Amino acid sequence: MGTALSVRALSGIGEVRPGDDLAALLTEAAAGELGPGHVLVVAHKVVSKAEGAVVRLGDVEPSDRARALAAEHGKDARHMQVVLDQTEEIVRARRGVLICRTRHGFVCANAGVDVSNSGPGEVVCLPRDPDASARALRARLPHRPAVVIADSFGRAWRHGQCDVAIGVAGLAPLEDWRGRIDAAGRELHATWIAVADQAAAAADLARCKDSREPAVVIAGLARHVTEDDGPGAAALMRPRAEDLFR
Amino acid sequence: MGTALSVRALSGIGEVRPGDDLAALLTEAAAGELGPGHVLVVAHKVVSKAEGAVVRLGDVEPSDRARALAAEHGKDARHMQVVLDQTEEIVRARRGVLICRTRHGFVCANAGVDVSNSGPGEVVCLPRDPDASARALRARLPHRPAVVIADSFGRAWRHGQCDVAIGVAGLAPLEDWRGRIDAAGRELHATWIAVADQAAAAADLARCKDSREPAVVIAGLARHVTEDDGPGAAALMRPRAEDLFR
Repeated sequence: MGTALSVRALSGIGEVRPGDDLAALLTEAAAGELGPGHVLVVAHKVVSKAEGAVVRLGDVEPSDRARALAAEHGKDARHMQVVLDQTEEIVRARRGVLICRTRHGFVCANAGVDVSNSGPGEVVCLPRDPDASARALRARLPHRPAVVIADSFGRAWRHGQCDVAIGVAGLAPLEDWRGRIDAAGRELHATWIAVADQAAAAADLARCKDSREPAVVIAGLARHVTEDDGPGAAALMRPRAEDLFR
Repeated sequence: MGTALSVRALSGIGEVRPGDDLAALLTEAAAGELGPGHVLVVAHKVVSKAEGAVVRLGDVEPSDRARALAAEHGKDARHMQVVLDQTEEIVRARRGVLICRTRHGFVCANAGVDVSNSGPGEVVCLPRDPDASARALRARLPHRPAVVIADSFGRAWRHGQCDVAIGVAGLAPLEDWRGRIDAAGRELHATWIAVADQAAAAADLARCKDSREPAVVIAGLARHVTEDDGPGAAALMRPRAEDLFR
């Protein structure tokens, strides 16, 4: 058998609240399972909650634009206002689906603002700077594992969602084989692997959405783990100028 | 620790050629490692090659349209003809990038026609019916593991590629949590997980592109493995009518 990966969800992480020390909670849940060369994938929800990236809808005063969009798409106007606050550009708005480019540059539904797994009357936003969040967690975790902060994104042409990396520290987000030579001596023209996104996807398979398993340890990716924190998930974003689908 | 997954590439699979018995090659390489409840992820290249979905460019007579596209995008006109033969609709053609909807309904670069890891003067196409290929492999593998046939697809708004499932047998391709209740008693509105695509992505992390490791065994996904072959990767395709980005 060749290379091997093990992917394991951490259990015992309870509800995370604004101000909680997430690095301490993760360290405790990992109970010595974290080592150098490991990748810790963390669902963004707990990062957002610990950082207080949570909005009480009762505190939101929707703008006219939010009211108009909400009426058009059958949404809550206050929720829509939070989405707009996170949005740089609405890429598509059709049949109740809003695809937004966020302030960070992510293209995803509702600018990543989520009502599931949040408290009543609350919505959870993406972390303000997920790469910085990943770096901060990494610095405080035993053995400095690579850290990936993940969210579930839909895809333009495929049903269902896959987890992708929205914050990365210490993992090469992309592995570039372009220009290298394949087994038959031919150039691997297009091979440019989104390692961090695939790590996020692998981690998602190891946890259940309804159980509280927001963190997953992946062993076997040490070849992609770097001493420095690296370019982060920012490197995964296709710049607007290269976007063929706006 | 919670749920766990292990992901392991099979070694010892040599060059696959048209007419080779792929099920026999995979069975031999697995050497008893395959069990019920396992998922075997196979790179489409070896499936395509075994099925003879390989075109010698010397045998191709490019049409005027292929010549025009090739000139416009700096491609080989015969390669372009093979791409057109696999294409139902060109979704975007810009700056040398052709995004096509294939006969199968996949939206991907160059209709999945690939020059890397193919013989000199040859290109490899996607299998004619990847779900049927997956079912046929599954029927002949010991313990009938689930089978996923994978290819690397780019993404509209993110750099790099992730492996996705283009053929599936015996794995529920999607896990639908929509309408179910989360840990806080709220409806999980949007949670619809592309299990088969995430399995393909996880598998890709366990192999090297330049080594000949076209098959990966995943253990730990038995909850998604089904007795019947199920709807296949066809269930992952967003119908044209729902496509917001054509």
